[in-house]
Amino acid sequence: MSTELTLRPFFWRATRLFPEKRIVSRTHDGRFEYTYGEFGDRVRGLAGALTELGVEQGDRVGTLGWNHHRHFEAYYAAPLLGAQLHTVNLLLHDDHLEHIVTDAADDVLLVDPDAFEAVERLHDSFESVRHIVVMDDEVPETDLANVHAYESLVADADPVESWPDVPEDQPAGMCYTSGTTGKPKGVEYTQKMIYSHAMMTMTPAALDIAEDDVVMPVVPMFHVNSWEFPYAVTMAGARQVYPGPSPDPADLVSLIEDEGVTLTAGVPTVWINVLDYLDDHGGDLSSLERIVVGGSAAPKGVMERYEEEYDVAIEHAWGMTETMSIGSVSRPKSTMDVSQSEEYDLRATQGLLSPGLEMKVVNDDGEEVPWDGQTPGELLVRGPTVVDEYYNRPEANEEDFQDVPGSAATGSTEDGSSERWLKTGDIVVVDEDGYLEIVDRAKDVIKSGGEWISSIELENQLMSHEDVVEAAVISVPHETWQERPLACVVRRNGSDIGVEELRAFLDSEFPSWWLPDDVVFVDEVPKTATGKFDKKVLRDRFDDPDLPYTPGE
Amino acid sequence: MSTELTLRPFFWRATRLFPEKRIVSRTHDGRFEYTYGEFGDRVRGLAGALTELGVEQGDRVGTLGWNHHRHFEAYYAAPLLGAQLHTVNLLLHDDHLEHIVTDAADDVLLVDPDAFEAVERLHDSFESVRHIVVMDDEVPETDLANVHAYESLVADADPVESWPDVPEDQPAGMCYTSGTTGKPKGVEYTQKMIYSHAMMTMTPAALDIAEDDVVMPVVPMFHVNSWEFPYAVTMAGARQVYPGPSPDPADLVSLIEDEGVTLTAGVPTVWINVLDYLDDHGGDLSSLERIVVGGSAAPKGVMERYEEEYDVAIEHAWGMTETMSIGSVSRPKSTMDVSQSEEYDLRATQGLLSPGLEMKVVNDDGEEVPWDGQTPGELLVRGPTVVDEYYNRPEANEEDFQDVPGSAATGSTEDGSSERWLKTGDIVVVDEDGYLEIVDRAKDVIKSGGEWISSIELENQLMSHEDVVEAAVISVPHETWQERPLACVVRRNGSDIGVEELRAFLDSEFPSWWLPDDVVFVDEVPKTATGKFDKKVLRDRFDDPDLPYTPGE
Repeated sequence: MSTELTLRPFFWRATRLFPEKRIVSRTHDGRFEYTYGEFGDRVRGLAGALTELGVEQGDRVGTLGWNHHRHFEAYYAAPLLGAQLHTVNLLLHDDHLEHIVTDAADDVLLVDPDAFEAVERLHDSFESVRHIVVMDDEVPETDLANVHAYESLVADADPVESWPDVPEDQPAGMCYTSGTTGKPKGVEYTQKMIYSHAMMTMTPAALDIAEDDVVMPVVPMFHVNSWEFPYAVTMAGARQVYPGPSPDPADLVSLIEDEGVTLTAGVPTVWINVLDYLDDHGGDLSSLERIVVGGSAAPKGVMERYEEEYDVAIEHAWGMTETMSIGSVSRPKSTMDVSQSEEYDLRATQGLLSPGLEMKVVNDDGEEVPWDGQTPGELLVRGPTVVDEYYNRPEANEEDFQDVPGSAATGSTEDGSSERWLKTGDIVVVDEDGYLEIVDRAKDVIKSGGEWISSIELENQLMSHEDVVEAAVISVPHETWQERPLACVVRRNGSDIGVEELRAFLDSEFPSWWLPDDVVFVDEVPKTATGKFDKKVLRDRFDDPDLPYTPGE
Repeated sequence: MSTELTLRPFFWRATRLFPEKRIVSRTHDGRFEYTYGEFGDRVRGLAGALTELGVEQGDRVGTLGWNHHRHFEAYYAAPLLGAQLHTVNLLLHDDHLEHIVTDAADDVLLVDPDAFEAVERLHDSFESVRHIVVMDDEVPETDLANVHAYESLVADADPVESWPDVPEDQPAGMCYTSGTTGKPKGVEYTQKMIYSHAMMTMTPAALDIAEDDVVMPVVPMFHVNSWEFPYAVTMAGARQVYPGPSPDPADLVSLIEDEGVTLTAGVPTVWINVLDYLDDHGGDLSSLERIVVGGSAAPKGVMERYEEEYDVAIEHAWGMTETMSIGSVSRPKSTMDVSQSEEYDLRATQGLLSPGLEMKVVNDDGEEVPWDGQTPGELLVRGPTVVDEYYNRPEANEEDFQDVPGSAATGSTEDGSSERWLKTGDIVVVDEDGYLEIVDRAKDVIKSGGEWISSIELENQLMSHEDVVEAAVISVPHETWQERPLACVVRRNGSDIGVEELRAFLDSEFPSWWLPDDVVFVDEVPKTATGKFDKKVLRDRFDDPDLPYTPGE
């Protein structure tokens, strides 16, 4: 058992070798602060509480929470018991919340006060959920039974003193992605995958996380395990800062200033908003060395401003829920002799694949394309930190993975083994130096502020309206959110239905940030040779920012 | 299969993302230089050649070689085929060579010209060995059949274009250790263990190996996989420099100067000799940032001289063959407020356990001792980079591992699972900050210049002499070699046998560097309560450098 890759050594190293180091967590009305030693005691307490609530190896503990110390404790207590932490995006609309919690069949939910109302509303459909724990001192007034306050539960529990041996293949984490098709799909991370990804993330080739860093993960803890920061940073013994419920730019700047944050991470939108805030209010980023930006491409102008005005390096990373986040990072190689402007161009690409991964870029016939910086192909990846199936979704497995039979041991012998590759859906070019750059997307999705919006779901709903003949939803560039949805609609003959009526028609079904910023009415949706919507033509047509659609907030 | 941890991504990343980066290898008469791209082609060629020699998954490819590019190629070609690389110390005496090669039942041997004579001499006893490949351009004159020249073999082979899927539990490496008992014991490393150790080694918490490093592993490639440098450095895409056959201090200094080495690693003896050389001849170490020193404790004075005179940090590491080398590294924590002198004291300890490992320190009753910097106990470790058995040696498994039944999931429930810990044989104290310091050794071994010498084997041989009643061999401190063996002998009544006769008696059985530097004649060997030799008493008695034993070369 000792050679299994599990999360136990992460907990051991931080709590035994760095018990004095500080963790800071922003709350609704201030900051909570404690040490890894105290964190360890509370994790043992929470694990005891979960055990008393009946949580056993293999059970699922769902969370709907922001980035804070209690959520961080849950990141350890559940997997150390052999249970699975299922982080749910608390901003999702009821339909998606219901689908995700019931599809995963969560046994217990840990929820922030902000999310309690939604959970209360959906409670009757959450048949699997036996207990609800509110991550706060007290429970809000409620008619529900089996609702507990986190703090009293932890305080009253018998702490777990000795962790069970958990097999490395035990699922330890779970996230849903609405990346490619309608219903969000579950992605499971085993103990071994989290171990491998967190260890890789620590290396200089990836994020270079060291003991002397002070790390603030802004990327939500419900989003791909907060890019594994709660595991990697803990193993490194570095200080960590959690920015709490819906942090705004003022909160982030003040945490950086007060806690001496050296490294932070999040989607571009966050850092664009922080720049705007700094322009208006000023701020001291002198402790900050690096911002890891991922989820969407970081605009080059933003990278330049951080570098030149604040001496902060933007490290551009690429990843997916299916690659456990970080799968590549972009920095120039030490052997490159590049000008400042060429360096920005390089840093704006998706960069070099991270240690442990392999990739190939293939054309429509499945043949590898040359690495010439020009020939596009779909990016396929594999490795110990790449999932090889979706939870409960055999049809998605067929679509999103490629099995290549007969990897041959030598040029002459077929050994009959097969390779499984994840089809990322990203259309990329690779240059001679191996730098990846995303140039298009094979799958019809929109990524707004780092979160996926499914164009297909929006289209299906629009086309269910009696005045709509055809509808294609595409992404258009947006200054703050990188992408926003735009609906291209063919009206029924004679109909004069307008933009606001169609937005209202979508409003009941989707979160407000899914709604297309505008609807343009077209005579027909262009089609490919095989009769599919040709969204590339539409995207090209509406790529011009001077066109008269209305950019949303 | 895609989530298996194997060496294939190491090869992929270096050859695909860093094909232009240079590898330098010192030869008998100059330096060989090529790129990762060319390295990749030659690895494919060597793999083809090995396949043509009949090497299959699970076969053992033994090597007797110094640190050079051909040996480096073997580090990849064998494991990528699913075969096991068994690195043999080419300095060993015939008895040990014979035991090691026959115990492992190597199928093919790759040998340096330096080692060919020994292999020729022992050939008849190497029953399992089907082919011998001399790692050179040509084969020395020989009567043996099945001897091949590396270069023509690689040039003529069909290169392997596509690697087979190798299971992660496939043994990929093997080393013998003479650490604790008589006969050297085999230790096997799986693909997964090498993956995990190399990835851990790259992290800032361990050795912090980055793409812009130029790394020269001086620790022999026959010694615990050269502390995994050939794997970790390759994955990092860093330049590497191999110092070739029996490098002397002049060779090392000149490689550092010419190649801009930033990071190097080896046992203290090497760096003590380099200091002496620099005192006499001068040299430019300005590119060098860090020397990782392990295998034995680095003398504090040596650390201070490197830091103060050459601005080179000595990073003190601890490890064993059984922990795949690096298991802890000593640096102050960023939160410590220490004086320069306290920092040297800290750096002279064995430091903080590396990511992925767990430890406990226990007294004779198996109870954990407090971390107070004073209470000694034996160091027990476990983790994904710790072996959990010896090859072919059930009795050693029983002695060197501790199985602790009943790790409990909670304070109240016994779950019946068990923990296996490696008993390191090192007696340590741990301070309040978690820093390990070795204070004694539980097992009777001597570590001279980073290599184990078995006191028991020497004693048994001495006691087989008719004039010897009892013999205890202990380690005494030595300026260059850290430890050297000293024999304490009780002569038969009336015998006047002398030092040189006894050394000559040992000479035929052991390598010259095993011979005790001196023999002192004592009236009796002190015994413990249970009648065992009490070497601690002897070690204390001869710890005084003014005593009249003769320090050896």
